[in-house]
Amino acid sequence: MRVYWEDTDAGGIVFYANYLKFFERSRTEWLRSLGIEQQRLKESTGGLFVVIDTRIRYHRPARLDDALIVTASLLETGGASMIIRQQALLKKEQNNSAGALLCEGTIRIGWVNAGSWQPARIPASILDRLKT
Amino acid sequence: MRVYWEDTDAGGIVFYANYLKFFERSRTEWLRSLGIEQQRLKESTGGLFVVIDTRIRYHRPARLDDALIVTASLLETGGASMIIRQQALLKKEQNNSAGALLCEGTIRIGWVNAGSWQPARIPASILDRLKT
Amino acid sequence: MRVYWEDTDAGGIVFYANYLKFFERSRTEWLRSLGIEQQRLKESTGGLFVVIDTRIRYHRPARLDDALIVTASLLETGGASMIIRQQALLKKEQNNSAGALLCEGTIRIGWVNAGSWQPARIPASILDRLKT
Amino acid sequence: MRVYWEDTDAGGIVFYANYLKFFERSRTEWLRSLGIEQQRLKESTGGLFVVIDTRIRYHRPARLDDALIVTASLLETGGASMIIRQQALLKKEQNNSAGALLCEGTIRIGWVNAGSWQPARIPASILDRLKT
Repeated sequence: MRVYWEDTDAGGIVFYANYLKFFERSRTEWLRSLGIEQQRLKESTGGLFVVIDTRIRYHRPARLDDALIVTASLLETGGASMIIRQQALLKKEQNNSAGALLCEGTIRIGWVNAGSWQPARIPASILDRLKT
Repeated sequence: MRVYWEDTDAGGIVFYANYLKFFERSRTEWLRSLGIEQQRLKESTGGLFVVIDTRIRYHRPARLDDALIVTASLLETGGASMIIRQQALLKKEQNNSAGALLCEGTIRIGWVNAGSWQPARIPASILDRLKT
Repeated sequence: MRVYWEDTDAGGIVFYANYLKFFERSRTEWLRSLGIEQQRLKESTGGLFVVIDTRIRYHRPARLDDALIVTASLLETGGASMIIRQQALLKKEQNNSAGALLCEGTIRIGWVNAGSWQPARIPASILDRLKT
Repeated sequence: MRVYWEDTDAGGIVFYANYLKFFERSRTEWLRSLGIEQQRLKESTGGLFVVIDTRIRYHRPARLDDALIVTASLLETGGASMIIRQQALLKKEQNNSAGALLCEGTIRIGWVNAGSWQPARIPASILDRLKT
C-alpha cells in the first residue's frame, strides 16, 4: 500500500486512525485469498464480521509517498470470535523487502446477524476455510 | 464546525475531499431543521437522496483548530433533483461572525430507491417541506 | 456529536476506525478547555502530541443520525506520556442524558519534536494544566 | 483499486466524497509515473500542488468489494494551473477490462508556496515532464 495525501494529517504523518483502515484492507484481502468475499457472505448468510476489540501500538510514523507492507495472520480462533495479528512495515524501495515496523496490534473479530446485530457463532464453512 | 487532525493532510491544511464531508453534515442538519431525518426516511419510504453532481471552488485553505461556518441553501428544485448551494467560511473567533470564504459550490441531489438504485421522483411530502 | 453518512459503512453502522476520530475530537476539545491549542503549541514549542498505543472495546453499533456523547478523562500522567480514558455513549434524545455504552478504551499519548519525531518529555507548562 | 469497508456508507455504496480520494490516488500515481514525487517536490522546491476547482458527475454507485479502474489524463495546462480529467470505471472481473462508468470529472490544480500559500507558476521542470 502507498501513503496518499488522504492518509496524512497536519503533523506530516499518517493519522493514527488510518492504520485501522490499512489493517481492514489487509484483512479483507487475506479473507479474499481464502475465498471469503464479505459482500457475498452477507447476501448468502445474512451475517457479517464485526470488530470486538483492538490493541494497537504505534512505533514510528509513516509519511506521504511511503510504501507500506501490511500483514494479517490468524492468531487464535474460537466459535464466536477470532484474533488477527496485524503489522504495518515500511517497504524498502531498493528491494521491496520489509523495513522498520511502524504499527502493530491485534484485532478481535466476531460474527453478527446483519439485521439484529446479535452476536452469533462464526459459520462452520468459514471456520473451515480459516483453518486451512 | 471545527477543523480536527482527521480533516487535515500533510500540506498542513484541510484535505480537499473533506469539504464534501463538511457540506454533507451541513445539508443533513439543514434537512433535519426541516423535519427530514434521512435514516427514518429510508425506513419509511424505501428511498434516499444521492449526489448527482458537484461543482466546487477552493479559495483559501483552512488549518488545524480553525472554526468554520458551513452553509446550505436551496437554489433550485424540480421533481427529480434539487440544487443546493454551499459555502465554508472561516469563523472569526472574536465575534463568531463569518470571515474569509474558503470553499463554495453547488451540489445536485437526486432521489433513488434504496434497493434498485433506480432514480425516482422526490416524494411530494419532502418537496413540500423544502419549499416552506 | 452526530453520526453522519461519512461515518457509516455498508454494514449500516459507524466504521470502527471512526471512533478514533470521535475520540480525537473529544481529546482536542478537552485540551482546548484547559487552554491547550495544538496548532499554537506546535508553533510555540516545536512539539506535538502523538498516539503511542490504543486499547478499544466495541460494545454496540451506532447508526446514521444517532447522537453521541464522547468523553475524555485523564487516567494517568508521567513525564513522557499520559493515558486518557475515553467513552462513546448513545445520547438519549428525550432528555439528552447518556444511554448505552457503544465503545470505550484507553489512549496513551506521548510528546515528540515535530521535526525529528524524537520522543521528548511533555513540557512542564502542559503537565501543570493537565493536573489542574 | 478495490472498494473496502472504509469507502462505503450506510447506503451500501461508496460515499461520494471518497471518489475524490480515488482521484487523488490516481493523480499521484500518474505524477509518480512521470517522475514527480510530491513529498520530494515539496522539500526541493518549497511548493506543492493544490486543488482549485472540481466538477464531478456521479453516474452509478460502486459497492463493497467492487474493483475499480481510475484514470487521470492531462486535459489542459497553463503556467499557473492545469486541468486533469478523471474517471472511475467498474472493472470487469472476467477479463480485467473497464466496464460501466461510475463517476467522472475535471480537477483544476494550481501551484502554491508551501509556507505562504501564495499561488505561483508551476515550475518549468514540472511542466516539461507533464508535456512529454
